[in-house]
Amino acid sequence: MFETVAIIGLGLIGASMAKTIRARTGCRVLGTDRDEAVVQKALLCHAIDAKATNEALAGTDLVFLCLYPAAALTFAQEHGDALKGAVVCDVSGIKRWICERMSAVASANGFTFVGVHPMAGKERSGFDASDSALFQGASFLMVPCDAPVSVQRNLADFASLLGFGRTVVTTPEEHDRMIAFTSQLPHVLACAYVQSPCCPKHNGFSAGSYRDVSRVARINETLWTELFLENREPLCQELDLLIENISAIRDAAKSGDAETLRTLLRKSREIKEKLGE
Amino acid sequence: MFETVAIIGLGLIGASMAKTIRARTGCRVLGTDRDEAVVQKALLCHAIDAKATNEALAGTDLVFLCLYPAAALTFAQEHGDALKGAVVCDVSGIKRWICERMSAVASANGFTFVGVHPMAGKERSGFDASDSALFQGASFLMVPCDAPVSVQRNLADFASLLGFGRTVVTTPEEHDRMIAFTSQLPHVLACAYVQSPCCPKHNGFSAGSYRDVSRVARINETLWTELFLENREPLCQELDLLIENISAIRDAAKSGDAETLRTLLRKSREIKEKLGE
Repeated sequence: MFETVAIIGLGLIGASMAKTIRARTGCRVLGTDRDEAVVQKALLCHAIDAKATNEALAGTDLVFLCLYPAAALTFAQEHGDALKGAVVCDVSGIKRWICERMSAVASANGFTFVGVHPMAGKERSGFDASDSALFQGASFLMVPCDAPVSVQRNLADFASLLGFGRTVVTTPEEHDRMIAFTSQLPHVLACAYVQSPCCPKHNGFSAGSYRDVSRVARINETLWTELFLENREPLCQELDLLIENISAIRDAAKSGDAETLRTLLRKSREIKEKLGE
Repeated sequence: MFETVAIIGLGLIGASMAKTIRARTGCRVLGTDRDEAVVQKALLCHAIDAKATNEALAGTDLVFLCLYPAAALTFAQEHGDALKGAVVCDVSGIKRWICERMSAVASANGFTFVGVHPMAGKERSGFDASDSALFQGASFLMVPCDAPVSVQRNLADFASLLGFGRTVVTTPEEHDRMIAFTSQLPHVLACAYVQSPCCPKHNGFSAGSYRDVSRVARINETLWTELFLENREPLCQELDLLIENISAIRDAAKSGDAETLRTLLRKSREIKEKLGE
């Protein structure tokens, strides 16, 4: 299906992809990173077979751009020649912004672009946090853009080979709206939550609820500032709604309105129960 | 230290206490519940040694009231005679409201009241969700009220015997302020979060962040309505602050202010890092 796969950017997602592909397929894996020390580490621990030099890149079938969105676009623009004929996927967490721009670069340079989003992560980043088990059972979101069905099918099969639980084909718009809710909102929440003056004193007074809500507050502020800004409309819509919903609960509590409070909480319980969660 | 312990209310916390005490101490464990079928089940699976009838209650050294706060107060008022001489603990999640009222009942009836709060829970409730491992390593919060030091020491030793990680002695005011942040806020958040129209469609687009934030939205609305109302001042203070902090992030995103956004997120990351989390 694919013989040589190149991973550009060996952070948490890129290096986890490299390790997973090496562990579960017969593909030759090339990799590179702006930090040469990371490339050496990846070579030493067999996360990659060889460095993805510009020459090596020219012979690859499949390229995963595991960079921040703007950097992925710049890479594709600067290496358009070497990417010719390849299937190129970015793995970033936003899709309208990148698909629109990448589609243009792809047709200008003769490569096939598919936006993908492996729905897995960790509150730690970087090569050292990478793990060949990170994607097991996770969703593989795929935004086909103009890619032929045969390429989409190959990518879905490849994702299955890597241990993803399922491939979900979506549009840039649906992707960004859903991700604003499932991923970006929890990150905003976690960051806002830990800013309470109670937070530094939580030890001894906390358990699972604190841990779960605050987990992703250990955020990579450079990456997430970019992701939030590139997805600001759906994100701000969700945030407006969330503030409204929190305010309704607060107002009921403040005024001692047990009936309204109970109704609001019951509504939430029923949503979770209906989902079987 | 204690020979006979009675558990009033065999829901998640009460039955988990009963099972833990049976598993880890030589105490005789009595138990009761407003639902007679639950008492029978508890007897059958040896979660309790015998039913805590009114007569049996009179001979116990230690009583845990594992009921909603108002129900715990009513029980103590109605069974004051039988509780005479015992150490009586309520385990509910609020302490100013209950300590003030229970202290009066305690001195009127000659028992010793200590407010405690085992910092462990689950998103499921009831006897069937109970587990003798629930409290392992958890904090045991203790609000001594007027209890002598010897009683406090005995309770702390007992908690240690049960596998709690540590006992934290606190005041009703500190307890309620911290719990508003560590426990009540995440519950409000989870409930507000799942009310987004995106929630029922999250499947395939979600991973750990969604799961963690939404987990406790499967809420017991009767219990939590009571807890929220009995702790409304600290809770509403925390909610006001949270809404303010979320709004600051939203405003920065909405206006495309990368610098402010990055500064806000960095602040959160640094708080988590300083805590070593």
